[in-house]
Amino acid sequence: MSGNTLGKLFCVSNFGESHGPAIGAVVDGCPPGLALSEADIQAELDRRRPGTSRHVTQRQEADQVEILSGVYEGQTTGVPIALLIRNTDARSKDYSNIADTFRPGHADYAYWKKYGVRDPRGGGRSSARLTAPTVAAGAIARKWLLNEHGIVIRGYMSQLGPIQIPFESWEEVPNNPFYAPNAGVVQQLEDYMDQLRRDGDSIGARIEVVAEGVPAGWGEPIYDRLDADIAHAMMGLNAVKGVSIGAGFDCIAQKGSEHGDEITPEGFLSNHAGGVLGGISSGQSVTVSLAIKPTSSIRVEKRSVDRQGNPTLVQTLGRHDPCVGIRATPIAEALLAIVLMDHALRHRGQTGR
Amino acid sequence: MSGNTLGKLFCVSNFGESHGPAIGAVVDGCPPGLALSEADIQAELDRRRPGTSRHVTQRQEADQVEILSGVYEGQTTGVPIALLIRNTDARSKDYSNIADTFRPGHADYAYWKKYGVRDPRGGGRSSARLTAPTVAAGAIARKWLLNEHGIVIRGYMSQLGPIQIPFESWEEVPNNPFYAPNAGVVQQLEDYMDQLRRDGDSIGARIEVVAEGVPAGWGEPIYDRLDADIAHAMMGLNAVKGVSIGAGFDCIAQKGSEHGDEITPEGFLSNHAGGVLGGISSGQSVTVSLAIKPTSSIRVEKRSVDRQGNPTLVQTLGRHDPCVGIRATPIAEALLAIVLMDHALRHRGQTGR
Amino acid sequence: MSGNTLGKLFCVSNFGESHGPAIGAVVDGCPPGLALSEADIQAELDRRRPGTSRHVTQRQEADQVEILSGVYEGQTTGVPIALLIRNTDARSKDYSNIADTFRPGHADYAYWKKYGVRDPRGGGRSSARLTAPTVAAGAIARKWLLNEHGIVIRGYMSQLGPIQIPFESWEEVPNNPFYAPNAGVVQQLEDYMDQLRRDGDSIGARIEVVAEGVPAGWGEPIYDRLDADIAHAMMGLNAVKGVSIGAGFDCIAQKGSEHGDEITPEGFLSNHAGGVLGGISSGQSVTVSLAIKPTSSIRVEKRSVDRQGNPTLVQTLGRHDPCVGIRATPIAEALLAIVLMDHALRHRGQTGR
Amino acid sequence: MSGNTLGKLFCVSNFGESHGPAIGAVVDGCPPGLALSEADIQAELDRRRPGTSRHVTQRQEADQVEILSGVYEGQTTGVPIALLIRNTDARSKDYSNIADTFRPGHADYAYWKKYGVRDPRGGGRSSARLTAPTVAAGAIARKWLLNEHGIVIRGYMSQLGPIQIPFESWEEVPNNPFYAPNAGVVQQLEDYMDQLRRDGDSIGARIEVVAEGVPAGWGEPIYDRLDADIAHAMMGLNAVKGVSIGAGFDCIAQKGSEHGDEITPEGFLSNHAGGVLGGISSGQSVTVSLAIKPTSSIRVEKRSVDRQGNPTLVQTLGRHDPCVGIRATPIAEALLAIVLMDHALRHRGQTGR
Repeated sequence: MSGNTLGKLFCVSNFGESHGPAIGAVVDGCPPGLALSEADIQAELDRRRPGTSRHVTQRQEADQVEILSGVYEGQTTGVPIALLIRNTDARSKDYSNIADTFRPGHADYAYWKKYGVRDPRGGGRSSARLTAPTVAAGAIARKWLLNEHGIVIRGYMSQLGPIQIPFESWEEVPNNPFYAPNAGVVQQLEDYMDQLRRDGDSIGARIEVVAEGVPAGWGEPIYDRLDADIAHAMMGLNAVKGVSIGAGFDCIAQKGSEHGDEITPEGFLSNHAGGVLGGISSGQSVTVSLAIKPTSSIRVEKRSVDRQGNPTLVQTLGRHDPCVGIRATPIAEALLAIVLMDHALRHRGQTGR
Repeated sequence: MSGNTLGKLFCVSNFGESHGPAIGAVVDGCPPGLALSEADIQAELDRRRPGTSRHVTQRQEADQVEILSGVYEGQTTGVPIALLIRNTDARSKDYSNIADTFRPGHADYAYWKKYGVRDPRGGGRSSARLTAPTVAAGAIARKWLLNEHGIVIRGYMSQLGPIQIPFESWEEVPNNPFYAPNAGVVQQLEDYMDQLRRDGDSIGARIEVVAEGVPAGWGEPIYDRLDADIAHAMMGLNAVKGVSIGAGFDCIAQKGSEHGDEITPEGFLSNHAGGVLGGISSGQSVTVSLAIKPTSSIRVEKRSVDRQGNPTLVQTLGRHDPCVGIRATPIAEALLAIVLMDHALRHRGQTGR
Repeated sequence: MSGNTLGKLFCVSNFGESHGPAIGAVVDGCPPGLALSEADIQAELDRRRPGTSRHVTQRQEADQVEILSGVYEGQTTGVPIALLIRNTDARSKDYSNIADTFRPGHADYAYWKKYGVRDPRGGGRSSARLTAPTVAAGAIARKWLLNEHGIVIRGYMSQLGPIQIPFESWEEVPNNPFYAPNAGVVQQLEDYMDQLRRDGDSIGARIEVVAEGVPAGWGEPIYDRLDADIAHAMMGLNAVKGVSIGAGFDCIAQKGSEHGDEITPEGFLSNHAGGVLGGISSGQSVTVSLAIKPTSSIRVEKRSVDRQGNPTLVQTLGRHDPCVGIRATPIAEALLAIVLMDHALRHRGQTGR
Repeated sequence: MSGNTLGKLFCVSNFGESHGPAIGAVVDGCPPGLALSEADIQAELDRRRPGTSRHVTQRQEADQVEILSGVYEGQTTGVPIALLIRNTDARSKDYSNIADTFRPGHADYAYWKKYGVRDPRGGGRSSARLTAPTVAAGAIARKWLLNEHGIVIRGYMSQLGPIQIPFESWEEVPNNPFYAPNAGVVQQLEDYMDQLRRDGDSIGARIEVVAEGVPAGWGEPIYDRLDADIAHAMMGLNAVKGVSIGAGFDCIAQKGSEHGDEITPEGFLSNHAGGVLGGISSGQSVTVSLAIKPTSSIRVEKRSVDRQGNPTLVQTLGRHDPCVGIRATPIAEALLAIVLMDHALRHRGQTGR
């Protein structure tokens, strides 16, 4: 029931703050017998890590994960897997100038209203740094889904600000810092980001995530449909303002004669449903889109108030991602993996299959 | 943990099938002392009821609710409120022709893959009829939110297929069968639907829901953010393929200097955030958009398979909504009410406020 | 998370009050394909029903169950099973004399302190009548456990007030109104109860429940051990003040050399553990004991206070069980069945076995 | 929903194994603004720590706790509090002789049946060492309950094997290694334990825990009664085979005229109910008793089987508690604190009080 736990049978309990001693997660419910090492998890963390290109925050974090429990002689044992990542490059002084004011569009205002305490160090608990434990937990889910069901989960950026990025191939995705599936657009993205950085501004992005090989039958309608739980996980990711499945918002203008995916003995002829029918996986690829807002931490000055309610102007220096969408792809993949694994176990519990 | 329960402290457990004896919900966690009668709930059910205009299913259901427990002498007592709605106009014979085949885009295929049993009567559990208990439960949440916090929740249709419906006023919404906030567009909507019915086809729609008066501080990041739980509830509604908060997918092309809502001593100057910052309510109106797909039950013939996997052609007769979006507004309002009330109670539990 | 729901994958949500229109339960998580009829459930309800001997409350309730959902053509479909039992013999006037006072040892005082409202009709929600939905839900679990795993769950009374009831045979249990496994003691029990009724007093009892055939491996330590969840379910039953597993409180004076059940290739040589080791089933019979207090509704006058806090004397007339333990056996069996089925599904989810 | 999490609004997720790198807990749901330091927690851990007298295991563990998150400038912030305790004195070699066999009465057999993997190092996850994170989390709950409600939670040993320990005073409890409330019995306990150690045997014990100052109204019947959740927590503690509230098993032989606690304007005249009526706290002290079995790790040889099912004889060397009950008092106090705090928050959520 805890608000910081994702999943029902495969449960990820996230803890930590951006500039506290450590962040991490307790992963409860991973079946025994999965071969698992810190290297498996590190590989995913490295994909999300800050400081790897000039287009993301320059904070330097090794993001080295330590498995504290749940693995014995290279195999999961069925008991909780605790994952620990020490924070190393925490520079709280960078935030001293904003400790008393609220950034427009930032969580700090709402956190202060909720908790009545203020931890200004790097956004505290609301920092995107807290997606690292999610990625670490997701690495376990990815490996299990691949081993047990042959499921492959991949994502890419399909739009950065005004720039559409047509899908060309999965091969290109790891070759550029944007997870763009199209080599021809990369230079344009680089130029756009360079200008943005000079302006001290930030920009939104759109991410697509696809899970191939998901068997039919996962999901629990009503209300814990597979797509509902995917939406929950994705909208729970920092900066996400929209989530869609399959045709998404395009379905508004579609007629039923166009939208309904025809079925033949050889399979479906289209995938407007995005792999989910009535909240249950249909056996097609599960396809998800995310709208990610521009980060609120910008150098452009904006009107705001301080803790006393007086008007002020706010400008955020520190180190920030001018486009949080750039690092969002591996995180969205991890979230999809966690939801799918959770539903795989729930389905197995209820039906034995 | 049950997949058919929504909420953590304010919990709605939904039961029933389209053509079984009854549908309903058990609502657990409503605080004691709320004045509540069947009339309060009936008013909301009547807004969702089928058969009220020629543009929706002609199934005739009184949708009369009976409160079985949890209310004594006109007040809630703090114990579970059981709500019962008998099905009356169930015509299973209408479905005999599709009992052995699967409608393209319909849940029947996925349900059969999951459960291995087939209840073809009106979609069984996957029917939109099961939104009635949600609306009934939502009526309780609406009343509590209004009484305790002065929160008003309203919705409208902003697009039907290709037709945009510019917002003019809340007053117009109840005056037409579409929940359209613009009298000037109604005739166009009527004509479009009449033609669609003649074609035996269906169409998608877009719904907006707004909660005014939500105090700052509700939501539990990470992962049970207020927006995440809203996304979960909304994507759990039949036919929804996309959910967004505030600027939604428009934020992709926004710069931070534009997106971040400036704050003044008099309040926010815009609401791109949709009332949620970092997963916590900010004190602004919470604004949600839904993309609703066209129903799969159409008279237009499409390719499909039967239970043996043989190719077939499917055409759905029976009584159906050509645009499920038309009746979606009160349901989306109810879902938003349930999520807000749940978070109100969770916030109160954790902080005493 | 609702306080009125038992179980995590097999979830029973209980609703109703003693003298409201109806009581019942929504059972979520029963796998599809289980043959189930109202007769299956009625048989268990009839074992618990009031008014069947002179030693229990004379309230006459048919306790007729109606399955509202989740069963189609005689089989469970995997969706929620709603069970409805109408109250018929509700005589609220019997309680008018106690509406303003609190019975010593009765829940009415604590309910009033919690909820601030008073439903004096037959104890309202705190009535033992609310065990009927538990028994109905348990009937489903019993049938599933028997069909899937060959598990047999039986119980008996081992002590009534000062009278020990040595176990002789399961065959005798259904032959007397006490669930006593020993024909030789029945007359003594009858005489004791007759005298007690004349005195207007009540008495405690001890119940034993045994599940045979439980496979090794069910339970989730730490904290949701199988025995912990059994203790939760049993202590959640009205009037229970103590729960023990296996040797129970006798283990206090046992040495490890005596207590630890030796294992041979043919099996265990004793069962002090009561079938649970480290919170996980060991493959032996699961054995549970309950201590049940005397009911507080007696004709003997006792000191108490009224709602204004003034001293008063209380005497309860109405119709009551002078020994609630007499009808507790089928309820305890049902609770054990529910917990075991829940853990069976959780184990299957986590391990695939 | 995770099996390794205790509580619904105040949630403790426990991780670790006896001889892994670390153990700990993530505590989610502690309200903001509680003054909290590592010293607060360390004080409770030190009461449970091994190696402090000759009557407990000689394993030397500093049990030094590190707060990784959730506390800022000496105050809780409302976000998860992660607690880390490194294992330091792990001697796996001690267990090599039992890696292939199962100790009679030990969890190792059931764990192996459940998970199919074997971590023989000190019992792995089933070790009593995993009660340390519970104690650490409980320290937070104790402090909150004291600060917010003036609740004091204390426990003592009331029986060790055949030796009854009459309650004399709380003052004596911390003065002896047994938590015995009676100085006159301590020498007898010392002698008994010394002889037991020479015999290589172990013994059971009985523990009493009392919470004074609990307000009336906490608990959620049906099924999450306060006593039910206490029973769940206590039976979830290693080696506990029985739990009772108030009069407990003595209520079997009590008449209603004796058992029901009379109420006067000045308060209750007795406390057979143990502070809980109908599953809700009554305002009296909550009193709980635990039956703790003798540990299975003894030097006395017993019959068992190995992993291949062959007969063998087992004798456990290593370092063990000959009476796990001796260190159980602070753990039982911690569990009671966790359950009470969880219900305090749930009650506040539901009723605003």
